Amino acid sequence: MAKELTTRSENYSQWYNDLVIKADLAESSAVRGCMVIKPYGYAIWEKIQAELDRMFKETGHVNAYFPLFIPKSFLSKEAEHVDGFAKECAVVTHHRLMASPDGKGLIVDPEAKLEEELIVRPTSETIIWSTYKNWIQSYRDLPLLINQWANVVRWEMRTRLFLRTTEFLWQEGHTAHATEAEAVEEARKMLEVYADFAERFMAVPVLKGVKSANERFAGALDTYCIEALMQDGKALQAGTSHFLGQNFAKAFEVTFMDKSNKLDYVWATSWGVSTRLMGALIMTHSDDHGLVLPPNLAPFQVVIVPIYKNDEQLEAISEKVAYITAKLKALGISVKFDNNDNKKPGWKFAEYELKGVPLRLAMGARDLENGTVEVARRDTMTKETVSIEGIEIYIDQLLKDIQTNIFQKAYDYRASVTRDVNSYDEFKVEIEKGGFLMCYWDGTPETEEKIKDDTKATIRCIPLNGDITPGVCMVTGKPSTQRVVFARAY
Amino acid sequence: MAKELTTRSENYSQWYNDLVIKADLAESSAVRGCMVIKPYGYAIWEKIQAELDRMFKETGHVNAYFPLFIPKSFLSKEAEHVDGFAKECAVVTHHRLMASPDGKGLIVDPEAKLEEELIVRPTSETIIWSTYKNWIQSYRDLPLLINQWANVVRWEMRTRLFLRTTEFLWQEGHTAHATEAEAVEEARKMLEVYADFAERFMAVPVLKGVKSANERFAGALDTYCIEALMQDGKALQAGTSHFLGQNFAKAFEVTFMDKSNKLDYVWATSWGVSTRLMGALIMTHSDDHGLVLPPNLAPFQVVIVPIYKNDEQLEAISEKVAYITAKLKALGISVKFDNNDNKKPGWKFAEYELKGVPLRLAMGARDLENGTVEVARRDTMTKETVSIEGIEIYIDQLLKDIQTNIFQKAYDYRASVTRDVNSYDEFKVEIEKGGFLMCYWDGTPETEEKIKDDTKATIRCIPLNGDITPGVCMVTGKPSTQRVVFARAY
Repeated sequence: MAKELTTRSENYSQWYNDLVIKADLAESSAVRGCMVIKPYGYAIWEKIQAELDRMFKETGHVNAYFPLFIPKSFLSKEAEHVDGFAKECAVVTHHRLMASPDGKGLIVDPEAKLEEELIVRPTSETIIWSTYKNWIQSYRDLPLLINQWANVVRWEMRTRLFLRTTEFLWQEGHTAHATEAEAVEEARKMLEVYADFAERFMAVPVLKGVKSANERFAGALDTYCIEALMQDGKALQAGTSHFLGQNFAKAFEVTFMDKSNKLDYVWATSWGVSTRLMGALIMTHSDDHGLVLPPNLAPFQVVIVPIYKNDEQLEAISEKVAYITAKLKALGISVKFDNNDNKKPGWKFAEYELKGVPLRLAMGARDLENGTVEVARRDTMTKETVSIEGIEIYIDQLLKDIQTNIFQKAYDYRASVTRDVNSYDEFKVEIEKGGFLMCYWDGTPETEEKIKDDTKATIRCIPLNGDITPGVCMVTGKPSTQRVVFARAY
Repeated sequence: MAKELTTRSENYSQWYNDLVIKADLAESSAVRGCMVIKPYGYAIWEKIQAELDRMFKETGHVNAYFPLFIPKSFLSKEAEHVDGFAKECAVVTHHRLMASPDGKGLIVDPEAKLEEELIVRPTSETIIWSTYKNWIQSYRDLPLLINQWANVVRWEMRTRLFLRTTEFLWQEGHTAHATEAEAVEEARKMLEVYADFAERFMAVPVLKGVKSANERFAGALDTYCIEALMQDGKALQAGTSHFLGQNFAKAFEVTFMDKSNKLDYVWATSWGVSTRLMGALIMTHSDDHGLVLPPNLAPFQVVIVPIYKNDEQLEAISEKVAYITAKLKALGISVKFDNNDNKKPGWKFAEYELKGVPLRLAMGARDLENGTVEVARRDTMTKETVSIEGIEIYIDQLLKDIQTNIFQKAYDYRASVTRDVNSYDEFKVEIEKGGFLMCYWDGTPETEEKIKDDTKATIRCIPLNGDITPGVCMVTGKPSTQRVVFARAY
């Protein structure tokens, strides 16, 4: 199995695609740009969902569900928003099929044309703010802290499994507030939630920052983001949290009576992460042998493979395994015992390596005699023989070590390719090597555009906690308030 | 609040609609036939999802995700299936909007017409079986036991919140098997899971049966179903499980090599329940005061309302409440303490009655003195004053009693309106009174049609565990193998 994987140095992009398919995470479907998320991939997504959902609820949010369809006229109400999405919309125009008059298959029934076309939601600000209009009258109705788990559709021209697909799964938070300060605080709070999740669960280190005007969400006043760095030196935007000001409240006339009986427009945020996180997870940790999963998100953290010559041995091993499994489960560790007789241990080893199971335990005749088990770490590919007594404590600690280790490895890699660059000539050389380049920029969209045109690099973010020593723009020599992060990006 | 609710006897249908809206469960959206599921309603749906998901996984199923869109040609491949769904399809024909040449808003870009139209999935058999084709080669790849949580769209002409909406949320299981017997067993097993869930969690008694040919799912050989009875005497189909035979395998050419090296088509099932369950839940238990929720699915099982004259009293009460809450939470009981100062206790009482919270605790100055709390049951509307010592045991038992009581009440009601009817004249009188009528039917679609045309009653199911004494059809006098269940239905 593993040998069929293209290596990263050979062709990074092909390696990613091979891995997603061979590790049974997802595949392309018969529908252009839409993927099928396979059970193993979906199990990881379920873990991501469960943790995020818990974090959202702990921060006071509740879930709801809004329609899949958005009337065309709604999309048009916020000028920047429509500019951002009109060009990539799936449009429903009819509500019925009929038998073709020539008897060959089905055609769209021309009699069933909709009066107004419906857009399959690319994001839900417009349908949600049209609803909030009826829910909000007074400051007593605020804040409204609502999240939705949903599918969305953006008609992308070039798609890649998880990273950019026509349909994707995501969550979108949409909150309403009485004051600007409170809305900004909410947008920043959710950015912290995303960063915390990325680092503690995905083991993916992220930079927190704010987008330049060019890279802002269509309709936002500020877009906060977390930016991760992949092993090929390219950046990946992993989550965004938008301060929307009063733009959507104005577009949908959502006003409220404040404490002093004054009518004002409501302040808004929206924030989302998607199945794109799967791409970040895969590309941050995996290697030429396959997937490497953080224990905190692995569908199962430990797999146990028996090595036996006959039924008697298998039975003896199974007994020991039942003992170990019970101990591990009591500590909340998920375990799979693979006693499938159709496959050889070597095949299983390669399979679980490919699927990134954090720990593989193997038990054979000698282990039975000695009361031991072989423990193999996926992240370091190291093995050791360990006594069964107290193994649950050992494994519990090992899983924590793996979680820390893969985060540290990714963190160190990022540190090794993050550097200050001070001249545009140097920039043009350095950008070819990948990584995050910390540079002075004069703050204008024109300079940003020029850099993008010249080098395909974009400003990933203006760091929130970065060095704020002023300097001069590497391109124009104009004053700059702080270094910003440049990279080529997914 | 409660006084604004139409009573059931006044207008049952209006009562239902009032209740769904006033209890903050759902509302109609700006998109025809699509609803917004509000946070309180969605919280119940999340509980339903969590329990069902656990039950599916316990029976060996895994989740996955398939595309929202189905190419038009796929829908046409199974003849009966397409007949069933072609007339109610949302059809995507274009992938881009553009500015209108007259400068007024947006129009569909005629240049962005799709080569083949896409249907928003009304159900996923076709897209899933087109995918299974690549996943199944040998008996070793079987069974495939996959479930999907998703939104689906059926362009219904008349919609009602939860009961029948253009878009709804559901789960759809799609399994593939090597033998007919195994597929039939799977379809029946999932029917048992649905019945078990309906009775133990929703507290809704259901009849298990199989549909007559007229009422079968489009493309199925057999449709198993659970049928519930609402308080107005109308039946509601709450879940279906289909034995699909080899129909979809043949339509999508999904074959496998069996153990004896013979190529055969794969056997299939599909099964689903939807947000329609919310309608069954609401209509089975609720009363003229509002919602009545089973403790096993209530977003919070206990609400505590303080009754106080000053901050000092509130503080003393809050302290006691913290003690009670900790005890309850330790037993896994969910509690909300409503110390909102903007609302009076009377308002809160009415609100939680309306929202169906199983138990309401109220604590005032006298309770503080006496070490007591007032406990009010939503189902019986009875109150008693109880000592705080050991209250968690008392409440835990009370919640179990409520769960049992509302099931029993619904069961008794159903029993009271289920009766044998032996002549068609009697049938025509009895059907006006509602309930389940157990009648002999000759087994022909023609007789079934005639009864439907005459009386609007349909065969809800042929009971799986019913009396199988033979008799003669009430309409034609022809022989009949067993009584079947007739009712008017939602």
